[in-house]
Amino acid sequence: MKTFDLNDKISAPVSKVAAYVPGEQPGTPDWVKLNTNEFPYPPSPRVREALMCELSDGCAKLRLYPDPVSRRLREAIAHHFCVPAEYVLAGNGSDDILNLAVRAFSDGDKKIVTIDPSYSLYPVLAKIEGSQLINIPFENGLEIPYEKIFSSGANIFFFTNPNAPTGAGFGREAVEKIAENFDGIVLVDEAYAPFSNFSAAELVRKYPNLIVVGTTSKGWALAGMRIGWAIADPALIDVLDRVRDSYNLDRLAQAAGVAAMGDDNYYREFRGKVIAEREETQKFFDSIGWDYVKSSSNFILFTPKDKSGKSSPAAAASLFDFLREKKILLRYFPKEKSVSSSIRLTVGTPEQMKAFKDAALEWSKK
Amino acid sequence: MKTFDLNDKISAPVSKVAAYVPGEQPGTPDWVKLNTNEFPYPPSPRVREALMCELSDGCAKLRLYPDPVSRRLREAIAHHFCVPAEYVLAGNGSDDILNLAVRAFSDGDKKIVTIDPSYSLYPVLAKIEGSQLINIPFENGLEIPYEKIFSSGANIFFFTNPNAPTGAGFGREAVEKIAENFDGIVLVDEAYAPFSNFSAAELVRKYPNLIVVGTTSKGWALAGMRIGWAIADPALIDVLDRVRDSYNLDRLAQAAGVAAMGDDNYYREFRGKVIAEREETQKFFDSIGWDYVKSSSNFILFTPKDKSGKSSPAAAASLFDFLREKKILLRYFPKEKSVSSSIRLTVGTPEQMKAFKDAALEWSKK
Repeated sequence: MKTFDLNDKISAPVSKVAAYVPGEQPGTPDWVKLNTNEFPYPPSPRVREALMCELSDGCAKLRLYPDPVSRRLREAIAHHFCVPAEYVLAGNGSDDILNLAVRAFSDGDKKIVTIDPSYSLYPVLAKIEGSQLINIPFENGLEIPYEKIFSSGANIFFFTNPNAPTGAGFGREAVEKIAENFDGIVLVDEAYAPFSNFSAAELVRKYPNLIVVGTTSKGWALAGMRIGWAIADPALIDVLDRVRDSYNLDRLAQAAGVAAMGDDNYYREFRGKVIAEREETQKFFDSIGWDYVKSSSNFILFTPKDKSGKSSPAAAASLFDFLREKKILLRYFPKEKSVSSSIRLTVGTPEQMKAFKDAALEWSKK
Repeated sequence: MKTFDLNDKISAPVSKVAAYVPGEQPGTPDWVKLNTNEFPYPPSPRVREALMCELSDGCAKLRLYPDPVSRRLREAIAHHFCVPAEYVLAGNGSDDILNLAVRAFSDGDKKIVTIDPSYSLYPVLAKIEGSQLINIPFENGLEIPYEKIFSSGANIFFFTNPNAPTGAGFGREAVEKIAENFDGIVLVDEAYAPFSNFSAAELVRKYPNLIVVGTTSKGWALAGMRIGWAIADPALIDVLDRVRDSYNLDRLAQAAGVAAMGDDNYYREFRGKVIAEREETQKFFDSIGWDYVKSSSNFILFTPKDKSGKSSPAAAASLFDFLREKKILLRYFPKEKSVSSSIRLTVGTPEQMKAFKDAALEWSKK
């Protein structure tokens, strides 16, 4: 055959991309896994009931394509957020939705703006699309750089709220200020909103440029099922839908999502437990004098102090490794300078948090 | 707020796209559904066993992210096709893989070539990416236009084999001729290969420019679970992987796929039934003098003749509507000129085929 040089064949944007590296997923269940912000309790019992129903008749239903428009799931999401179903698009996790938004609303000319730090997937998605991502740092620590965002000339603003990896949350006033003044599309990435006291979904009927993105991964204990959504004016939903894969959610994901989103009592009770445990853990950090960002999410970004009372990337790395030795897994971002002296801790069960606290104390005295 | 004109905000390629329209998925189970080439029998009983196992402990596992690299599923696919696991990438259906290939190997300059007609999703994916798709018609009915493909200047060739919507299959010789002479990447889309007697997967170690794409949707009775794959040299797999969403397959899809791909006896027995029924149905068309393309897949593209013995788009539309009235659903492509006098029939169970044959005979005498 002819000579084949693969490098010649790769598309211009993808030739410059390295694959996104997600948090580690250990293969064995003996870890205290506090690294990827999963919910620490099982999903609503209704999820199992719904799935059992889908498996009836020897799984005969699975031979048929799923509903391409995820109608029942979209209705369940719409009901939860008090919007009509035509305001909702379902995705294979919210990462699917973020990818659709990058493709629909950015290109070689149309730029994306975000605040640094934010969800680390955005730069990867932008690179794959060949779009420019403008990264504007938070001001004075954790304040939104409004004017720089408004004057950025970008076509779409990716606003992680509550923020990752800091956990800080912004309320209605901030989102309204942005939606009113930003000359483009405002995408609010609300993966962690179930642990805050605000969702911008209530604003989509007021702002035709607002897209609110969510997922069952964090608040509904279904990270394993890849269910996400966009909530927006139907004109925006229609554009995202043009890019969507027709059968992006399988039958079991749709069924699990309907069941989980439909069980409000379970949702309220168990997210309450996580929020309570988060407050306890923040008190623990207060008690030992470690800084942290006050969290509106199900994780805490904290800055450990070594025996001599100093914070540094070396101290963070040391604690991260110390915990890892004990099979307690957190998330550390050594390459992101603004947070390289800190570690991100997912809020788990009281038992998991005790294991973390005991180990952290042991390290602090070493 | 400022004036918001959505049309100004849509990315250049997506502004020209209309969403792909998949085959109809009726919401009620009383249809004889022969329109989207699903497998007519349930999946292997091992699928239910594996899923039940995943649902244990009140679905506690579902709170955790799935394996981002679908290791066990890739191993099962690799085992089936006798290649090492690093030659395999898993997708959320083969549509996911096709999308990755368009993004990885085409752009504004790097073109795609395909044969007309082929899988109707390709033009949609190319448009979303802003890539040019060159459509070269079959020669003399169903012959591959080799020279035109080789001189097309395209970067990647999308080769649906067996073809959709004709069902015609091409063997090892054709694929080798293409892989040796085409100056670019050859993607063989083998959704229907389980019903033929050839898979190009055996050639990926010989040709570093060959990608073989498959799915459990047709041959393994799991259209509802969205499981697909690419099989190729690891250097090609690495490029596709850069574009892949990290968690593109949920836990239950991975478990179902491992179970289905692992049950070879079931696969052989039930695909044999479909092949036998296809041969019977072709004999039926012979017996009533209707033309069809000899099929290597689980569907037949046939050309009905009306009472006066004539074929036409009007006759095809008439039969399609007649069957639809009886809740027998086939697939008709009125806008694709090369096949507008024909209808595509998914091969079903003997009972479903009897219902179709009886109705077709009734129509032919009207």
